[in-house]
Amino acid sequence: MPEIDPLYEGWHVLADLHGASGLSDVDRIAAALRSAAEAAGATVLDVALHHFGGGGGVTGVALLAESHISIHTWPERDYAAIDLFLCGRTNDPEAALAVLEAFFGPARTDVKRIARGFGS
Amino acid sequence: MPEIDPLYEGWHVLADLHGASGLSDVDRIAAALRSAAEAAGATVLDVALHHFGGGGGVTGVALLAESHISIHTWPERDYAAIDLFLCGRTNDPEAALAVLEAFFGPARTDVKRIARGFGS
Repeated sequence: MPEIDPLYEGWHVLADLHGASGLSDVDRIAAALRSAAEAAGATVLDVALHHFGGGGGVTGVALLAESHISIHTWPERDYAAIDLFLCGRTNDPEAALAVLEAFFGPARTDVKRIARGFGS
Repeated sequence: MPEIDPLYEGWHVLADLHGASGLSDVDRIAAALRSAAEAAGATVLDVALHHFGGGGGVTGVALLAESHISIHTWPERDYAAIDLFLCGRTNDPEAALAVLEAFFGPARTDVKRIARGFGS
């Protein structure tokens, strides 16, 4: 992760996981969000998840004291859209993303990193 | 909004509101999220909000059948970081963002739009 401009508040990381698995398992997804937050050094306030049923997708978010991690899955496409918004210079979104990749084993992850904050 | 490539699933819109107000009012923020989702033609599954207390910030998310709208506020900086991820071609993130701007009256909004999906 490059050094962030001091005027920015944190990184917003958008990660597209292709060729991933375990994407309709809501318990696994809840565990993944909590483990990812822990790896980032973030504090979980709440985890809200919705399963669209059967082998369908899951949509969910971990609300953090430092913003959020969200996940939306399309198991029928082996695809998950994740975003990690972590404010605070001691938190590490890359560590959180690595945990999520370990849970879902994507063949490929496309990542975009955007600096955000009141100085922007 | 430009026409989205048929391989993409939806737009992820990152909006930074500067010079905004009402940013520590958790009831107003809940109402704003619900109104924004309605304006977008989206279905709210859940609204999870956390107020850091007193005149402090609010962090929250509306979980949607079509993904999510999140908001994180820094009232002491008159700044809010919003993201709107709306999957489905009939939903309109611009309409949702306009509602949020009407609620919080920013002096300036900076917007980034990113196409996402399993074809990307």
